[in-house]
Amino acid sequence: MSREQRAEIDRKLRRPAPEGERTVEQIRAGFRELMAGMLVPHERIRTAPAVLGGRPALRVDPVGEARDGTILYFHGGSWVFGSPETALSLTGHLVAGSGLPAYSSDYRLAPEHPFPAAVEDTLAAYRELLERGADPARTVLAGDSAGGGLAVTTVLAARDAGLPLPAGILAFSPGTDATRSGASMDTKEGVDPIFTRSSFEGTSAMYLAGADPRHPLLSPAVHADLTGLPPMLIQVGANELLLDDSTRLAARARDAGVDVTLDVTADVPHVFQCFAGVLDEADEALERAALFLRQRTAGGR
Amino acid sequence: MSREQRAEIDRKLRRPAPEGERTVEQIRAGFRELMAGMLVPHERIRTAPAVLGGRPALRVDPVGEARDGTILYFHGGSWVFGSPETALSLTGHLVAGSGLPAYSSDYRLAPEHPFPAAVEDTLAAYRELLERGADPARTVLAGDSAGGGLAVTTVLAARDAGLPLPAGILAFSPGTDATRSGASMDTKEGVDPIFTRSSFEGTSAMYLAGADPRHPLLSPAVHADLTGLPPMLIQVGANELLLDDSTRLAARARDAGVDVTLDVTADVPHVFQCFAGVLDEADEALERAALFLRQRTAGGR
Repeated sequence: MSREQRAEIDRKLRRPAPEGERTVEQIRAGFRELMAGMLVPHERIRTAPAVLGGRPALRVDPVGEARDGTILYFHGGSWVFGSPETALSLTGHLVAGSGLPAYSSDYRLAPEHPFPAAVEDTLAAYRELLERGADPARTVLAGDSAGGGLAVTTVLAARDAGLPLPAGILAFSPGTDATRSGASMDTKEGVDPIFTRSSFEGTSAMYLAGADPRHPLLSPAVHADLTGLPPMLIQVGANELLLDDSTRLAARARDAGVDVTLDVTADVPHVFQCFAGVLDEADEALERAALFLRQRTAGGR
Repeated sequence: MSREQRAEIDRKLRRPAPEGERTVEQIRAGFRELMAGMLVPHERIRTAPAVLGGRPALRVDPVGEARDGTILYFHGGSWVFGSPETALSLTGHLVAGSGLPAYSSDYRLAPEHPFPAAVEDTLAAYRELLERGADPARTVLAGDSAGGGLAVTTVLAARDAGLPLPAGILAFSPGTDATRSGASMDTKEGVDPIFTRSSFEGTSAMYLAGADPRHPLLSPAVHADLTGLPPMLIQVGANELLLDDSTRLAARARDAGVDVTLDVTADVPHVFQCFAGVLDEADEALERAALFLRQRTAGGR
């Protein structure tokens, strides 16, 4: 069954994109439309608007009794598009699966607000969580794609700011290398049904706005000291240009003495977890992510 | 807490071993004594002697209703020592955690029976399981150390024999490189509280008995074609000479299109899961392994 599901999703994603240059607003609207098709477990969660670190956020609670702990979630979208709403399938399944409440941060986006605005906002969100009394030993930073990268870099920024670190990092297909130096950038060209090397150029230029891509908070998998990071679960599809953003992050974190689980699913695309309910691998990956969230927030270590 | 637990286990394992050359029987008795100290969840399992593939085996059932599926387990011990009894802490926790019954194979050991006797026996065990009607889509091959290597090589042998493949491979600190070519063989010397490069020499010589260590069934992480393998969960400690037996197995399986989760825990030794009940990381790793077993035997793919 699932080999067919994987192939069907690959076919769907390969539909030609609209021709010509698109404006930022067209890109954002297109992503909203795409992600509106993903299943959200509405019967198992409740959402409410919130403010965290001076930015809007979406609070997501499980229906019924919640576990003690917090997920701080960062959506994907190349630091240019996306919102807590476009990531609600992912955040909602994590909340429903783990029983933990989440805040999903609406951090500032490029090109209006290039690097380091996003990290400033996500760090401010984490800082305010702690100020409100959240136990860092029961808090996990999580995100997909650009947001997976932010989950990592926010912890690096928190470490460098002397804040207590969260209990874990959960990253789905994180973007962790603005230098685009991974071998998979070439070996997965044509295999990746979503991205090409050139497709990253526009959004990268907007986010970097001239910053050196070798900055540790832009390329943590290659240029950051990962010492002291909490346990990480990295999930990634094998059909991704960004595969080696994950494999190198995992290898370097491992070498730095971090507990790291690198969870690679074959024949699936970038952030395949958003096909929950449609693709068995997505459901299973989210179930493993939920176990990670429960283990990390159990307060045992 | 757990950083202290990790350090305490490291200290205990560094106790000096008895001096001088030990006979095979002394090695076997020493390992029996060591493993008799590990906690077995007796209240949650039942054991019974069995025969599988012409060899003795230990049947391990969960108390209460069992799930549909089978674990075929291979104990560790450098292909020279160990038995289903010495691995009962591990097998028992997997059975209790997953709800699946297991057969733990008492495959033949070197030096009396060098390579390929062990793989012949484990393949025969798998073959007889299938002949008795076990559904390969609900069967996982699992093992620790040498037995983790056997879980991999038995599937390779089954593939090459044209048998239907099991639904997954679960390997704890598998031994997958008889050429001893991993970088961790050097970088973890002194870090590993159990092994040194020279400590492998005696048992390796007994198992190989002159066979070329580059044989795919002796060094699958380096010399086997891993195409077509079922999803794998590899758990390993970072304080292991054998760390790169796992990292290279994972990397090459990933490149061959296999679903692979590489789950590395920092600051813990070889097969740290046998410290269940004493080390939080062991309990958590076994919980992740149990989820893998349940997912792989759900019959969904």
